[in-house]
Amino acid sequence: MNKKIVVIGGGTGTFTVLSGLKKYPVELSAVVSMADDGGSTGILRDELGVLPPGDIRQCLVALSTSDLLMRKLMNYRFPSGSLKGHTFGNIFLSTLQKITENFDQAIEKLSEILRLHGQVIPATLNKVRLVAFLTNGTSLRGQSLISKSNLEKLKKITLEPRATANPKALRAIQESDLIIIGPGDLYSSLIPNFLISGISRTIGRSPAKKVYICNLMNRAGQTDHFTAYDYARKIEEYLGGKLDYVIYNNENPSPKLLKKYMREGEHLVLSVPGENKRFIGDNLIGRQFSKTQKGDSIRRNLIRHNPDRLANLIVKKILMATR
Amino acid sequence: MNKKIVVIGGGTGTFTVLSGLKKYPVELSAVVSMADDGGSTGILRDELGVLPPGDIRQCLVALSTSDLLMRKLMNYRFPSGSLKGHTFGNIFLSTLQKITENFDQAIEKLSEILRLHGQVIPATLNKVRLVAFLTNGTSLRGQSLISKSNLEKLKKITLEPRATANPKALRAIQESDLIIIGPGDLYSSLIPNFLISGISRTIGRSPAKKVYICNLMNRAGQTDHFTAYDYARKIEEYLGGKLDYVIYNNENPSPKLLKKYMREGEHLVLSVPGENKRFIGDNLIGRQFSKTQKGDSIRRNLIRHNPDRLANLIVKKILMATR
Repeated sequence: MNKKIVVIGGGTGTFTVLSGLKKYPVELSAVVSMADDGGSTGILRDELGVLPPGDIRQCLVALSTSDLLMRKLMNYRFPSGSLKGHTFGNIFLSTLQKITENFDQAIEKLSEILRLHGQVIPATLNKVRLVAFLTNGTSLRGQSLISKSNLEKLKKITLEPRATANPKALRAIQESDLIIIGPGDLYSSLIPNFLISGISRTIGRSPAKKVYICNLMNRAGQTDHFTAYDYARKIEEYLGGKLDYVIYNNENPSPKLLKKYMREGEHLVLSVPGENKRFIGDNLIGRQFSKTQKGDSIRRNLIRHNPDRLANLIVKKILMATR
Repeated sequence: MNKKIVVIGGGTGTFTVLSGLKKYPVELSAVVSMADDGGSTGILRDELGVLPPGDIRQCLVALSTSDLLMRKLMNYRFPSGSLKGHTFGNIFLSTLQKITENFDQAIEKLSEILRLHGQVIPATLNKVRLVAFLTNGTSLRGQSLISKSNLEKLKKITLEPRATANPKALRAIQESDLIIIGPGDLYSSLIPNFLISGISRTIGRSPAKKVYICNLMNRAGQTDHFTAYDYARKIEEYLGGKLDYVIYNNENPSPKLLKKYMREGEHLVLSVPGENKRFIGDNLIGRQFSKTQKGDSIRRNLIRHNPDRLANLIVKKILMATR
C-alpha cells in the first residue's frame, strides 16, 4: 500500500511541495489554514460569508490531474469589470460552498471535477480571523494585515473566535506515515494551523516523522536574521513538540534576484553547517519558471523552492529511509 | 441508430423542450441565438467582450446528466456583493471563453463536466447585436431593449454587424432528422437565428420535417391577437420556407394565472380549430412547478409548456410517424 503523506500549510509553499510529491506513488493530503483574508479571498469572505477559498484552490490545482485548460481556468484572474481581481477558482469554490453549505462537500465536488490525486482539507470549518497582539498594547486584525506588518513586538498570535479542528484534518494526520510542515510564511500560513484546537495535539501523538521545510528567504520585520534553526525552534514552540527533520536550502539564488529581495529588506535564510543530523541541507532553489508553470499560478522572478528536488529529497532521504 | 433532432431557439422555451426530449433515445442538438444582451449576460458581454453565455447555459443545464448539485451550481445567482445578479454558469462559460478564445471549445469543456446528453451550439460565433428599425425612422438597439418594446411599427429587424452561421450549427441542421423551432419569443429568441447568414437556407434545403412549437401567450405590443396561424406565418416569412407542422396548445391555464398575465396586457394564444392538418393541438400547459424544477431555472407561477407532454407529442405524433 502506498505511504500516506500529509502536508500542513497553505499558500504557495504548500502548492510547491504538493506539485513535486504528486509525481510519486504516495497518498497525499493537504491540510490548509483557514485564516487567509486578503485579495479575492477576502472579498468573497466578506461578501458571501464563505470560508477562504484561495489556498484551497492552489492546493487543488497542485493535485489536479486534469488538463492544463482546467488548471488555467482555476487560476484565471479577471483583469477588468465587476469581477476584476477575482480568481475564477475562488468564485467556483465559494459558489459550491453557498449551495452545499458544507465546505468539505464543496471541495469534494471540485476535487471530482479536477480529478484529484489526493485530498485537500480545511484545517477548521470555523470562520476565524488571525489576530496579533503586540507588547505595546495594540493589536493587528486579519492575516492580510499581519503578513505585511512588523511583528518585532509580537506578544501573542491567536485566532478569533476559538477554532476547533476539522475532524477530516485530524483523521488525515492520524493516518499519515509522514507529516510535512511548510514551506510557508511562519505567521500567516503555518502557525495559524497550530492555533486550531486539536491540530498540534494530534501531530504530537502521531508516530509519523515530522518534517519541517524551512523558508528560503527571511521576512522583513518578522523573521529577520533567522537561521533554519530559529525557524525550527519557532515551529516547535507553537507545535508544542519536536520536529524529526528540518529541510533547509544551501544553494545561492542568482545575485540579481537576491538584490531584488534585499531592496525589500528580505535576506536569504542562512544554512546551519555543523548542526545535528536532523537538519538536511540541499540545493533547493527552483529554476526560472517556464510559461506552463506560470499558468499553474507560480509567478516568475521569485525565489522559490524547486518542487522536484524537494520531493525527491523527502521521498528518498526521509520516507524511504524510515520505512 | 438514434434519430437526430435539432432544436433552434434560445431561452426558457428551448430549455423546456430539451428537458422533455432528453428522456427519449434521440440525439439532441440545440442551436442557440447569440443576440442576448440583458442581465448577467449583458454585463459579461460588455465587461469581458465574450459571446452571450446565458441561453447556452440554460441549454447545457437542460441536457446535463450530472447531479442536481451541478445543475444548481450552474444556475446559482449571487444575491449580494460585487457578483450580485451574476449567474455562476454565465461566469464559468465566460471564463472558459477567455482562456480558450473559442466559444465552441469552451462549451465542449463545460459539456464534458456536465456530462451532456447531446450538444449545444451557438448559432454564430460573431459578436452581434439585434437592431429593430421602426417605420417612424427610429431604431431600437439590443435584444434586451427590443424584448420590452412596442414593435407595432416594426419595419425591419436585423443583426449588426452581419453574422455568418457557425459551421457546427449548419452541420447539426444538415444531419438532423427533425428540426424544431421554438417555443420562444418571436423577435428576441427565434427570429435572431434566421437573420444569421446560412441558417435559413440550410433549414430550407434539409429534407427533415420542420416543426414550429407555438407560444402559449401573446406578447403585448409585439404579437397582440396572434393566433397559432399568425405565428407560423411570421416564422415562415423570416425562414423563407414552409413549416411541416405547427404544435399549439388548446388547454386553458388557471384563471388566476391568466388574470396575472392580462394585467400585463398578455393574452392566451388562440387555438386554430378547423385549420389544416399540419396544425397539431394538444393540452400542453405545464403544472405548478415543483421546487426541484425551480432549481433548474424555471420560475414558478408562470404559464409554461409541460416538457413531458411536449416531448411525447413530438416523438409519438411526428418523429415516429415520419419514420
